[in-house]
Formats: sequence, structure tokens, C-alpha cells
Amino acid sequence: MTTYEIIAKKKQGGELSQEEIQQVVDGYVTGDIPDYQMSALLMAICLRSMSDRETADLTMSMAHSGEMMKPDTGGFNVDKHSTGGVGDKTTLIAAPIAASCGVYVPKMSGRGLGHTGGTIDKLESIPGFRTELSYERFTDILRKNGLAVAGQSGSLVPADKKIYALRNATATVDSIPLICSSIMSKKIATGADGIVLDVKVGDGAFMKTAEDAEKLAELMVRAGRLAGRKCSALLTDMSKPLGHSVGNSLEVIEAIEALKGNAPKDLWEVSLALASEMISIAGLGTAEECRVMAEKAVASGKALERLSKMIELQGGDPGVIDDYGLFASPKKKKEIFADRDGFITGISCEKTGLISLSLGAGRSKKEDDVDSSAGIVFDRTVGDEVCKGDRLAVLYTSSECDLEGIAADFAGVFRFGDKTECPEEKNIIKIIKGY
Amino acid sequence: MTTYEIIAKKKQGGELSQEEIQQVVDGYVTGDIPDYQMSALLMAICLRSMSDRETADLTMSMAHSGEMMKPDTGGFNVDKHSTGGVGDKTTLIAAPIAASCGVYVPKMSGRGLGHTGGTIDKLESIPGFRTELSYERFTDILRKNGLAVAGQSGSLVPADKKIYALRNATATVDSIPLICSSIMSKKIATGADGIVLDVKVGDGAFMKTAEDAEKLAELMVRAGRLAGRKCSALLTDMSKPLGHSVGNSLEVIEAIEALKGNAPKDLWEVSLALASEMISIAGLGTAEECRVMAEKAVASGKALERLSKMIELQGGDPGVIDDYGLFASPKKKKEIFADRDGFITGISCEKTGLISLSLGAGRSKKEDDVDSSAGIVFDRTVGDEVCKGDRLAVLYTSSECDLEGIAADFAGVFRFGDKTECPEEKNIIKIIKGY
Repeated sequence: MTTYEIIAKKKQGGELSQEEIQQVVDGYVTGDIPDYQMSALLMAICLRSMSDRETADLTMSMAHSGEMMKPDTGGFNVDKHSTGGVGDKTTLIAAPIAASCGVYVPKMSGRGLGHTGGTIDKLESIPGFRTELSYERFTDILRKNGLAVAGQSGSLVPADKKIYALRNATATVDSIPLICSSIMSKKIATGADGIVLDVKVGDGAFMKTAEDAEKLAELMVRAGRLAGRKCSALLTDMSKPLGHSVGNSLEVIEAIEALKGNAPKDLWEVSLALASEMISIAGLGTAEECRVMAEKAVASGKALERLSKMIELQGGDPGVIDDYGLFASPKKKKEIFADRDGFITGISCEKTGLISLSLGAGRSKKEDDVDSSAGIVFDRTVGDEVCKGDRLAVLYTSSECDLEGIAADFAGVFRFGDKTECPEEKNIIKIIKGY
Repeated sequence: MTTYEIIAKKKQGGELSQEEIQQVVDGYVTGDIPDYQMSALLMAICLRSMSDRETADLTMSMAHSGEMMKPDTGGFNVDKHSTGGVGDKTTLIAAPIAASCGVYVPKMSGRGLGHTGGTIDKLESIPGFRTELSYERFTDILRKNGLAVAGQSGSLVPADKKIYALRNATATVDSIPLICSSIMSKKIATGADGIVLDVKVGDGAFMKTAEDAEKLAELMVRAGRLAGRKCSALLTDMSKPLGHSVGNSLEVIEAIEALKGNAPKDLWEVSLALASEMISIAGLGTAEECRVMAEKAVASGKALERLSKMIELQGGDPGVIDDYGLFASPKKKKEIFADRDGFITGISCEKTGLISLSLGAGRSKKEDDVDSSAGIVFDRTVGDEVCKGDRLAVLYTSSECDLEGIAADFAGVFRFGDKTECPEEKNIIKIIKGY
């Protein structure tokens, strides 16, 4: 079949065969299929969708488009992935907990665009911390400490890199089969035995409704299983920022505090659920046993030790664990006070994200640097009663930006109302186990 | 709005504003919008369609993307366009008739791909005939004889040229709004005061059903009217090849014969209807009066005189009118005989087209030359009773091709059956007047 015929078939709502999907992925990676044919096909996929079988085939074709890894730890390797949200630093909490309970967590991340940097940018706010590791060094750190975080190798899933850039330019991002194949091809190529997915739901997440999130989660779990991996997905709340801090070093500090036992309730519940699932998927106990193991790992300080050791092994200064003054200090800060009495009935994730980006914490273009010190720390959260004049949050930045203007915009982040208007807190919406 | 947002809007089924459509057309012509964004948008248009208003706006934006012509004849200029079919030589018949009745027919054609060449290729089978005319020469011939045919200037509707090539590579051809804008932008840019559209219906046409054809026809008539042109459309039958001949010189000969009063019934009915409509749209009489004028123009030989004069003015040898031996002779021919008794219940247009292409009459790539002598002449047509051994057709070619193999395939062109299975002949299905 020619590429033209494949595009026409999908346009008419047909189901592509494994061979046809393979041909498209291979042809696009080699450059035999031009961008303009691929973008037409991607738009047809957005509007005609793909069957579960097609999605799984696309995922596998993409995974095999480059190097396939398999870090040799002698143990069970578990990867954790979040579909992304505001204030999401759960990797920095759940991964050390899981590692301290006997799981191996090889974590490869990209930088990406967004309201803050990715996990890698956050960790690089620690003085000296390096994420450019050779594969040997990565595996070595992993064997020693059960935990390593590295930047994604260029030879990993070239199909995803190329397709994702095209989707980003052609308004073909919001397709559940395409999102699934993009995420899962990378997880499969990095060689995890188990994959725990955190699918965020809410207006701060890519999936706005629990229904869409569940569809994506089930599709990803199925694709993982078809690739012979153990896989599960948690649907978690992203109707407000997770925890109190949004930023790079600010989120690292909040994660360290969480491993010291001082996490806000929402952040703790989600991190604990993810860590428990990572331990459970590795076959180390029942759900309840794994939960207890995770709690003990924090209470005993063992999880924090793992994080500290990882920082040291990756060239960073582990002194940051006890002295947050070692992080670069923000040059400017601005306190935000309540202008009325009432209950906080909502905090807009989208607006928080945009404010964070304006402060310099994220990237709007790939070439941009992130300001590691920039961000927001909330004093109050949804459900809290506040009085006029109470401090609600502090904004930090070291970047050239109009801090007064940003602070004025920040008022729109909060919604106020009666106690009855405060939403019920539900941090873990659902768990989908695929093993 | 960014191009991304425009693509996203159409993907979600939104209606694009005139400004948004203009921005896309302008950006694509200048190269600011890359092919891969345009093809994503075209696929979204294929699957989400466009409103009549959007289609009209797209048509006008495309028409204005290059030079806008207005041949100064002092009279009423009428263009005629066919959506394309097998054996369609009606332009060569209807245009001289209309010109001899006082209409000015400035005809600009492309070459295109297909089972035979276009009108230009057909005319170029006449020794010496030139279609590369300066605009001054084109207008001069038009003023003198009411009729001129030229190759389409490169500066005419560059948006259509670029968009059409992209649609051809990305399976985004079969969209009624895109077909309409492609056809009508060219008709509007060539400056016709009146436009008569021949929308073919049937398995040999782009529009397989009368319903789709009518939709396209009405959309084109409306777009023409919004551009301030008088416009009408005829839905005509393309369930079998039109007339007896398919090829380049073979079709010119059949057209000359038609102007001598010797046309097969189907070809005559369609040509007469088109010519009458061209005269009528120019305001020269009622429908019935125009029909009588057209019939008289043939009977008196005046229409044939116009064709002869045009051939002379465009450098061709008008001797071909009386001596078909002046056309290049085919090097090989092959007679096809009936292998059974029965009625011809169908002649496949699609297969006839493919056979014609194999014989060398058409182009499969833009660079190809056409074999002016190649083609098919049918002795029998749908509804005829034949006996085993009767001659059904003759194949002609001067090209390197497997004539025996092609002749064997040709058997599949005919369907045989009982008299009762012969379809009723209906050459003119509907006339839609937009003035």
C-alpha cells in the first residue's frame, strides 16, 4: 500500500494493519514519508481515532524505532510516568520511597515545555547535580542506590521525537491514541518491567474529565500489557495545584520536606499511592503491605537517605537536604494578601501555570533556560477560610519580569465563596491495575 | 489567530472567518505556512467540511492569490467547465456553437493527468496548433472570432496550483468545498461574466451520485454568484463514455463530425444543452430560443466555421476539418469483436479510461507526453444488440505498449445481458440556474 492509500484508508475511518502502521513509522523516521503526508495522517487519526489494536501496534512500532534499553539491575525495574500537572513533584517523593523498599527505578526524562521545568530541570536546581549520564554510569548508580535520573538519550524512540514535534505544530496533540503511543513507546523502550502511570484529571490536566482520563489510562495499560510489561494507572486529581509549591528548587524543597514527613495532605496521598503501587507492581507485597512499607520508609528516614545518596552519586551537593540556603536564592519576592474574608473554593491550575511561566520557572520555547529559583509558594489552599489581609502566597523570581503586574494578575488565581461551595477533596479517583 | 489555532478551530468543527481563510491562503502562497500545516488543515476540512460561506470565502481568497484577468471583448464572456469524464469533448462542440451565436468564449485550460489529455492536448493533435499565446494575442483572437483556447498562465491562481498538488499527495482531494474552490477560483480569476458548469455524474465521474453532484453544483453556482458572476450548472450522465471516441485526435475528429451534424445522440444532447446554456446565460434569448439558435448554428455550418477559423488563428492547419488524414496516424490498431450474442448493458468508464491511458492517450505523470493518435473508437454502445463476431471497437496507438494484452483486458469494459437490463438513457439529469 502506498502512503497515499494509507492516509485515504484512515480518512475513511478504516483500521490500519500492523504492516501499514509499521510502514508509516519506519518511512517517517527515515524521511521517506514527508511531514505533509504525516500531518494529514495525524489529523485523520485525531478525527477518526484508532482501535485499541492499532494503538498498541503504533506504540510498538514507535518503541522499536530506535535503541531498546534494558538496564541490568538484577532486580525489578519500575518506571513511573505522570501525564503532567501543576506542582507535580511526586516522582521526587515516590521514587526514593520505592527504591528504599527494594524496587529499581530507572528514570529517563525529557525537558519539555511548560509552567515549570521537568523532573530533570527540578533536580538540576541542586548545585552540581548532573543528569547527563552515560548508560554505564546510569546503570551503575541504579545498581548501587536503586534510583537514577537521566536526560533522555537522543537515540531513544526517534519516531516519537519527530511525530511529537509535528503534532505540536499541526494541532494534532489531543488524540488519545496518539498520546498513549507517545507515552508508552518511551516507557517500553527504556526497558521497565513495570510501569506506573499517574493520569491527572481536571482543569489543570490534559484530560479534563474522568471519563477521558480513564479511557487514556486503560488504553495505556493495555498497550503496556501487550508489550509484556506489568502496568497500572492511577487517576489523580488536578483540579488545583498539587501541594503548596510550584517551581523548580521550590518543588525539590517541598519533596524533601515530604520525605521528612511534612507533606501537605494532597501531595502525600498521591505520592504514597504511587509509591505503594510501584512496590506492589514489583511483586513485593499486597497493596496494604506495600502501603505500610512505604509509610515506614518515610518514617525511618530511609527514603530520604536514598534521595540524598542519589544527589551525591549524580554530582550534587547532598547538603541541600538540611540546608535549603544552598539553593540559588530568588532575587525578588512578592507577598500576596487576601482582599476579602471568605473561603477559598478553588485555585485555577491554568492561571497558576501561566503565572509560574511568567515568573521564569518554565519554558515557552525549547531553547529557553529555566529560572531555578522562580515560582510560587501557597500559604493557603482550597477549603481554607481566610480573613482580609491574610497572606495567601509568595511569588519568587530571579528573572527580568514585571513582578507587580504578575502579582496583580495572580489575584485571579483564587476563587472565593461560601463554605458550602468548597469542593470535596478526592485526591485518588481510581486505580486501574493491568497485572 | 495563529495558523495552529486556525487548524485547531477547523479540527473541532468550527467555522473559519473570512480573515482566517485569507490568512491561510496568503500564508501558504508566500511560503510562511509550511506544507505540513496546510495538509493538516486540508484533512480537517475533508472531515469537518466547510459552510457555504467559508467555501465562497476560500474561493475568492484563492482567486485573488494571483493575476485577475478580464479579456476586453466588448461582449459577454462565458466560460465552460466540466468536472471531467471519459470521452468528454463537449468544449470543442459547444464553444464554437456559442461563439457563432455571439457569445465570447475565452477558454484557459490546464493539462492535468488522466485517461486522455485535456482540451489543450486534444487541440494540439492538430498539426501546427499553438496554445501558448500572449494575453494580447489571446484577446485579439477572441475579439476576431469569439473563441480562443490557451494554456493556463502560471500567474493565474497560484494558491490553487500549490493546494491542488498538496491535496493530490495527501488524500485530501474528495472534499466538495475544496473541489468547488479549486474550480471556481480559476473560473473567477479568468474573468468570465458567465460560467456554465458541466457536473458529471456516474461511475466514470468524480461525483458518483446525483446527490453529491447536485451538492457540488449548487455550491459552485452560489460561489460564482457571490463573486458577481452569472452561473449555472448542468448535471450530465457519465455512467458510460460520452460519444464513440476516446483519445486526443480521435475526439477532435468526433467533435468536427458533431459540428457537421453527425454526433452520437448522447454527445449531441449534452453539447447542445451546454451551448444553449452558454448562449442563454449571455442574455441572448429564452432557453428555447437559444436552443434553436444553437441547432441552426450547426445546420448552417457557422459553428464549424468558427472552429476552422480558431484553428487557423492559433497556427493550426484548418485542412483537418475536411481531411482527417492530416492528423498523425496511429502506428498500430486492434479490432475488438464480440465473443457472444446479447445486449450491451454497460460500458465501464473507469476501465475505458485505464485502457486509454495504457494506449498512451493520457498522462500518469505530469512530465509525460501524450500520444495524440492513441485511443478507442466504439462501434457499439449501451443498449445495442450484438451478435458474436460483430466488431465492438477499435484500439489505436503509436506508443510502445502491449497491444495484445490491452485488447485482452478490453473485454472487461463491456457488460452484456438481456434487453431488460439495459438502463434508460438520460443524458441531462438536471439544470441548476444561478442567474
